[in-house]
Amino acid sequence: MSYKAPVKDMMFAMGELAGIDRLSALPGFEDATSDTAQAVLDEAARLTEGVLAPLNAVGDKQPSTWQDGAVTASPGFKDAFRQFAQGGWQGLQHPSEYGGQNLPKLLATPCLEMLNASNLSLALCPLLTDGAIEALLTAGSDAQKATYVPRLISGEWTGTMNLTEPQAGSDLALVRTRAEWQGDGTYRLFGTKIFITWGEHDMADNIVHLVLARTPDAPEGVKGISLFIVPKFLVGDDGTLGARNDVHCVSIEHKLGIKASPTAVLQFGDHGGAIGYLVGEANRGLEYMFIMMNAARFGVGMQGIAVSDRAYQKAVEYAKERVQSRPVDGSAKQPVTIIRHPDVRRMLMTMRALTEGARGLAYVAAAHADLGHHPDEAERAAHQAIYEFLVPIVKGWSTEMSLEVTSLGVQVHGGMGFIEETGAAQYYRDARILPIYEGTTAIQANDLVGRKTLRDDGAVAARLLTEIDRTLAELHAHPSFHASGAFQSMHRHLHAGRDALQKSVRFVVDHAKREPNAVFAGSVPYLMLAGIVLSGWQLARSLIIAVDKRDDDASFYDTKIATAHGYATQVLPRAVALEAAVTAGLCADGVPALHEDQF
Amino acid sequence: MSYKAPVKDMMFAMGELAGIDRLSALPGFEDATSDTAQAVLDEAARLTEGVLAPLNAVGDKQPSTWQDGAVTASPGFKDAFRQFAQGGWQGLQHPSEYGGQNLPKLLATPCLEMLNASNLSLALCPLLTDGAIEALLTAGSDAQKATYVPRLISGEWTGTMNLTEPQAGSDLALVRTRAEWQGDGTYRLFGTKIFITWGEHDMADNIVHLVLARTPDAPEGVKGISLFIVPKFLVGDDGTLGARNDVHCVSIEHKLGIKASPTAVLQFGDHGGAIGYLVGEANRGLEYMFIMMNAARFGVGMQGIAVSDRAYQKAVEYAKERVQSRPVDGSAKQPVTIIRHPDVRRMLMTMRALTEGARGLAYVAAAHADLGHHPDEAERAAHQAIYEFLVPIVKGWSTEMSLEVTSLGVQVHGGMGFIEETGAAQYYRDARILPIYEGTTAIQANDLVGRKTLRDDGAVAARLLTEIDRTLAELHAHPSFHASGAFQSMHRHLHAGRDALQKSVRFVVDHAKREPNAVFAGSVPYLMLAGIVLSGWQLARSLIIAVDKRDDDASFYDTKIATAHGYATQVLPRAVALEAAVTAGLCADGVPALHEDQF
Repeated sequence: MSYKAPVKDMMFAMGELAGIDRLSALPGFEDATSDTAQAVLDEAARLTEGVLAPLNAVGDKQPSTWQDGAVTASPGFKDAFRQFAQGGWQGLQHPSEYGGQNLPKLLATPCLEMLNASNLSLALCPLLTDGAIEALLTAGSDAQKATYVPRLISGEWTGTMNLTEPQAGSDLALVRTRAEWQGDGTYRLFGTKIFITWGEHDMADNIVHLVLARTPDAPEGVKGISLFIVPKFLVGDDGTLGARNDVHCVSIEHKLGIKASPTAVLQFGDHGGAIGYLVGEANRGLEYMFIMMNAARFGVGMQGIAVSDRAYQKAVEYAKERVQSRPVDGSAKQPVTIIRHPDVRRMLMTMRALTEGARGLAYVAAAHADLGHHPDEAERAAHQAIYEFLVPIVKGWSTEMSLEVTSLGVQVHGGMGFIEETGAAQYYRDARILPIYEGTTAIQANDLVGRKTLRDDGAVAARLLTEIDRTLAELHAHPSFHASGAFQSMHRHLHAGRDALQKSVRFVVDHAKREPNAVFAGSVPYLMLAGIVLSGWQLARSLIIAVDKRDDDASFYDTKIATAHGYATQVLPRAVALEAAVTAGLCADGVPALHEDQF
Repeated sequence: MSYKAPVKDMMFAMGELAGIDRLSALPGFEDATSDTAQAVLDEAARLTEGVLAPLNAVGDKQPSTWQDGAVTASPGFKDAFRQFAQGGWQGLQHPSEYGGQNLPKLLATPCLEMLNASNLSLALCPLLTDGAIEALLTAGSDAQKATYVPRLISGEWTGTMNLTEPQAGSDLALVRTRAEWQGDGTYRLFGTKIFITWGEHDMADNIVHLVLARTPDAPEGVKGISLFIVPKFLVGDDGTLGARNDVHCVSIEHKLGIKASPTAVLQFGDHGGAIGYLVGEANRGLEYMFIMMNAARFGVGMQGIAVSDRAYQKAVEYAKERVQSRPVDGSAKQPVTIIRHPDVRRMLMTMRALTEGARGLAYVAAAHADLGHHPDEAERAAHQAIYEFLVPIVKGWSTEMSLEVTSLGVQVHGGMGFIEETGAAQYYRDARILPIYEGTTAIQANDLVGRKTLRDDGAVAARLLTEIDRTLAELHAHPSFHASGAFQSMHRHLHAGRDALQKSVRFVVDHAKREPNAVFAGSVPYLMLAGIVLSGWQLARSLIIAVDKRDDDASFYDTKIATAHGYATQVLPRAVALEAAVTAGLCADGVPALHEDQF
C-alpha cells in the first residue's frame, strides 16, 4: 500500500489535542462525537488508500494534457473523482440544505489531510471547489446559491478561483480583467487569468469560474475589484447546461510538481465577451475573497502536513527494507536495515515530529474555527480571533516545514531518492508550490504581523503565551518530570521558545510604526518561530497525555513520547535562532540600506 | 547573460581570506600570484559565461539520450566540452609533466566554481575525470600514467569512478563485481555498476573506467576490494584505440535533476569478460579511492556553492524586474520592484550570505591543501590536517546549504518559480543530488566525527577554535566595534557559535565510546554547526577587512559588510540550536529505543 491513513494519530490529535467532544455541545454539531469521527475517518481512509493513492504517481508520470483548448485529466482521475463525489466528500462541511453533511471543520480536516496525502494534484480540484462554494455561500444571491451550490457539492460541477494575472500575483491591486455591464443582468468579461488550478478539465460537466474583474467605472486598486461567476457552459434557470461561454483555456503550464493538476491560462472574451454574473455588490470582490481565503489557506497548510506524512511513510518503508552498513554500536556483525542507523533515525524522527507538531496545531486551529460558532458571543469572538491568528501560521509554517520533510525523505533514500521512479522526488517537487500559492509565506507573514498582531497590540498572541505557560507548569509539576529526559528537554526548549516568541511579539508591536522595514524583514522568521513554538506546545501537551495514558497502549504512546522528545531537541531550539533573525531587522548598516545594484 | 562569474568576489576570497600570496613561496607554485589568478579567472569567466552557461537550460530540457547502448550528450555539449578541453582547463591542477598546468588548488577552485555554476551537468564529466587522474597518479604504474593521464588531461578521453552497485551504496563492503586473473597481465571483470556519472557518452574518443572489484581470493569486506582500469576501447602500447571492451551501458536513469549528465548502469562481462588492469596492489582499492575522494568531495562541495551562486544571480535579476505591491514603509505610492520589499531582501541576503560564507571556507580549505605541500614538515602536517578536517564540512555543509539557497531562489520568483521555463526550479532539482553523491551528508558527518575529531581527540578542532578566538578579539578591539551593528551582531553570534561548537566537539569526544548511537544521532547537526560557525568566521574576517578597506571601493565593501551582518543574524544563530540537537543525542527515552515498527 503506497499510503496508509494515520487514523489512530489523527484520532489522537482530534480527541486529545483539539478536544472534539467539546464540539457536540454546539448547535448543529450534535453528531460530532469521537464515534462519528472514527466512522468517517475509516471511510475516508478506504477511499483515499484504495482509490486515490495509487493514482498519485500515475498523474506525475502522465500529467494532464491540453489539446485545442480541451484538457484531459491524467488516467484514472475522472473515475476517481466520480467516486469521491458520489461518496459525498465534497459536501463534508457544507450546509445540509444544499446537500452537504454539515460536519465541523475539525472532522473535515483529517479527511482533507488524507485526500491530499493520497493525491495532492487531484485533491486540488475539490479544494478549489470548496473555495467557490464558500464564496457563493458568503456573497451569492439566493438564486445563485440554489443554482450552483448543490451541483458543486454533488461534484457534477467543479469550481475555480480566478485571481492572478500576469502582472498581478501577490498584488491584486493590479488586476486588469474588465467586466462590462450588458443591461440584461449580465456582464461581459475580457482579460487573461493565469495559474488557474483545474481551470479546464474533463472530470465534471461544468466548471464554475469565480473571477475577479473591474467594471469600467470602478475605483483604482483593490477597492475597485468585483467578483463574478463565469460558468464554462451557460446555465438555464432549471440548471440545464446551455451554450459554451467565451472563456477558453489557451494553455497549461509545465510545472515542477503537482503535474496531474492542470494549471490553466484562461482567456476571457476573445470571441465577444465571456458572460458573467456579479456576486454580491460591485467593488467588494476582494473582501469576499478574503472571507473564503482563510479556508483555502488553512487547506493549503493541510496540504503541507499531508505531503509530509506521505513522504515520511515512504521513507520509513525504505529504511526498513534497505540493508546497508553495520551498526555503529557494534550490535551486529553484518549490515543491517538502515533504520537501525542513528542518523536515519534522526531524519525519520525529525520528519515525524515536524509533521505531528504541525498536525496538532492545525487540528487545534480547526477546533477554534468550529468553536467560533459558539452560542456565547464572547466565546465565539475569542475562538474566532485565535483561529484567525493561527491561519497564516498553519499555512506558512506547515508548508515551509513540508519542504524540509520532503527533502529529508529524498535524503533517507540516498541515491535512489534522486531517481524519479522511486517516488520520493515527487513529494519534494509537489511540495515546492505550497509555500507559494494561496499567498506566499511572506504574504502570510505580513498578515500575521499586520492584521493578526499589530491590530490588537499582540493580545491574541499574549493569550496563547499564557496557555503555553500553563502547559509549562503542568510539565514541571508532573510526577515524571525528574525521571524523564523527554519532559526535561521539552520543558527547557519550550520555555526558551516561549520567551523567544514573546520577545518577538514585543519587537513587532513596538517597532512596526517607526521601523516598518525592520519588522517586515523579520516577518517570515516571526511566522516560523510562532509555528515552531505553537506546534511544540501541542507536542508538549501530547507528551503529558502519552505519559499519563501509557499503560493503555505502551507502543503507541511511547512513539508519542519519543516524537515529543525528538521535536524538543531537533526543532524547538530553532526558535531562539529565529528570534535573533526577527529582532535584528537587518537594519542600520545592514541590508535595507544597500542599493539594489549592490546585490 | 544567464551567468556572470563573480570574479571580484572570488578574488577577494582568494586574496584576503585564503591568502593566495602565501602560496607563491611554495616550490612549484612560484607563479601563483594575484596577477596570475586575475588572468586565469578572467579567461575562465569568458568560457563559462559565453559557452557553457547558455547550454545549462538546454541540457535540462533535452537530457542526454540512450539508444542501443550508446549515449548522445545534450545538444551543444560535445562542442562545448571540446572548447573546455582545448583551453587546457582539465589540466589546471595536474602535473606539467603530463600536460597539466600545475596550478595550486586555490587557483583551480574558482575555476571549478565557475564551471559548475555555468553548467553543473557538463562539469561533472571533468570532475570525474579529475578523480580518475588523481587515482592513477596516486596508485598507477608509470606505464599506466604515461598511457592514460596525458589523454585524460587533454580531454581526448574522459574518466569515470565505478563504485556503486545495487546492493552497495554507502556500504562499499558489499561490492560484488569480480575480477578474474587471466595470467597475461590482465583481469576479466564481471558485474553491474550503477549511478556511473558520464559512464557512457559521445563527447570523447574513449572512456577510462576506474572500477572497484574483488578478485576470487580476496578477503571479505572493504579489505578485499581492488581498483582496475577498464577502458571502453582497449588501448595499444602507443595509445591507439583497439577493440571495444566488454563494458556496456544498458540504461541511463530518469532523474530529478542534472538531467544532461547521463547516469549509467554499466554491465561488465556479459560477453566473456571486460578486460581490466589492476591499479597498484590488490586489495588496496578502497585506500586509493579514499586518497582521491577528498578531491572529489571538495569538488562536490564547490558544486553546492556554484549552484547557489547561480540561483542567487537569477533571483536577484528577477527581483529587480518584477513589479509588485507598494513598499511597506510608504516610500512610494505605486507598486515597486520586489527587491525593495524587506522579505525579498531577507531572502536574497540569506542566499548571498550562505553562498559567500561557504565560498570563503572552501577557498581557505583549498589554501590549506596547497600549504600541505610546504617544505617544512610540521607546517605541512598542520595544514594537511586542517584540510582533511574541512573536507567533509565543505562537502556536507556547502551542499546542504545549497538546498536552502536554491529553494529560496524558487520562492523569490513566486508562482513563476514553479514553472519550469523560468529556470529557477532547475537549480532546486539539480542541487538535490549534491548532499547525496560522493558520500551522503551522514557519511561526511561520520568521517568528521570518526576520522577527523575522535582520532586526534579534537586537536584540529581546538586549533580552529583558537583561530576563531583571535578573530573575535580583533572584532572586539576594532575601532568600529562600538559604532557598528554589524560588528556587534557578528561578535555576539560568532561568540555564541564558537561556544556551541566547542561544547559539541567536547560532547563528541567524551561520549563516542560509551554512547556511539547518541553521538552519531548528532553527527549531521555537528557537521552543520561546524559549517555554520567556520563560514561565519570567514565572514567575520571579511567584515574587518571590508571596514578597513572601505574607502578604496565603498560600494563593494559595503556589500561585504551587509553580507557579514546578514549572516550574523540570519544564519549564525542556528549554531546554538544545532548544539542542542548534537548534545541531546536522541537518547534515554528517545529515538534509539523505539522499535522500528513504532515509526
